[in-house]
Amino acid sequence: MTGTTKRDTYTPESLLAVAVGVFIERGYDGTSMEHLSKAAGISKSSIYHHVRSKEELLRRAISRALDGLFGVLDEDGAKEGKAVDRLEYVTRRTTEVLMAELPYVTLLLRVRGNTDTERWAMERRREFDHRVADLLKQAAADGDIRADVEVRLATRLLFGMINSIAEWYRPQAHGAAANGEVAESVVRMAFAGLRTP
Amino acid sequence: MTGTTKRDTYTPESLLAVAVGVFIERGYDGTSMEHLSKAAGISKSSIYHHVRSKEELLRRAISRALDGLFGVLDEDGAKEGKAVDRLEYVTRRTTEVLMAELPYVTLLLRVRGNTDTERWAMERRREFDHRVADLLKQAAADGDIRADVEVRLATRLLFGMINSIAEWYRPQAHGAAANGEVAESVVRMAFAGLRTP
Repeated sequence: MTGTTKRDTYTPESLLAVAVGVFIERGYDGTSMEHLSKAAGISKSSIYHHVRSKEELLRRAISRALDGLFGVLDEDGAKEGKAVDRLEYVTRRTTEVLMAELPYVTLLLRVRGNTDTERWAMERRREFDHRVADLLKQAAADGDIRADVEVRLATRLLFGMINSIAEWYRPQAHGAAANGEVAESVVRMAFAGLRTP
Repeated sequence: MTGTTKRDTYTPESLLAVAVGVFIERGYDGTSMEHLSKAAGISKSSIYHHVRSKEELLRRAISRALDGLFGVLDEDGAKEGKAVDRLEYVTRRTTEVLMAELPYVTLLLRVRGNTDTERWAMERRREFDHRVADLLKQAAADGDIRADVEVRLATRLLFGMINSIAEWYRPQAHGAAANGEVAESVVRMAFAGLRTP
């Protein structure tokens, strides 16, 4: 016990939140159990009481982001109606999940693939992108999406717009009310464009 | 002289290209003169023959990106006509400059501000964003941009879409022909939206 350690009152969730903050700040590779111990203010052995490894913390954090994102695809709005409307629904909800689960989704977006967990995360992220690209393809086949933007490129630009929100959105500064406003603006811009008709 | 060094046939431009590649791969902070020497295959003293410091290489690289971007604002299409048309022109040309000067703009986008040069880069980047935001504001005042997306948010989403291209665009893979196609698609999506009217 050093002066920096405190009684371990962490739940799996609250310890995860601390770890994710450190992963984002230092990068996953640059984070040691020592860094996590210091940030949490508990000993390394206390951390090992909660998890077996640093990689388990990463896996849990990434799972939380992926559960949120894939959960959207299981919602009624993503499964019923015309493809273009489902795509619009998924765009809105994906944006909302990104903001609600900001640190977890940020971590998912930054993962680069040096460990099994990171490769799995990238694979699942690609799977999500493909599911959305399929919606776009269907909407294009229905004639509801403009034919002069290639589907793969449109998917990339759409996610580029959504994912960029992680770079500036801060819940404390923007407030929960901004969440719906941002998601609605993404939908308006992506589907109807900036120009007034 | 070690076995890895070669005769110094670098021009300022070709040495800069090597340095930028290393900066992007290792991060600016994580790059030493030793790394640059190894990547270029010439001795450190040969590098010092070209530049005074690592920071000078960063400044030159960032300047190249900024010259390209600010150059767009001086082109006729950015200065003449209605604000919404100028904004559309700047969007297309900014996208083209990002692709044409990919490593330099990528470096600019990643800079975080630990040195004077990095802080200057961030300041200039903000200035560019403000110039574009002003165009958006004028276009909104003209009634040519939808009023239900807040101007600052629209600027962020527009740059989010454009800047995300740096994450996947590779000139070797996509070819010069893709450059104009991507820029045109960004304009279509940002200004007219994905949905067919």
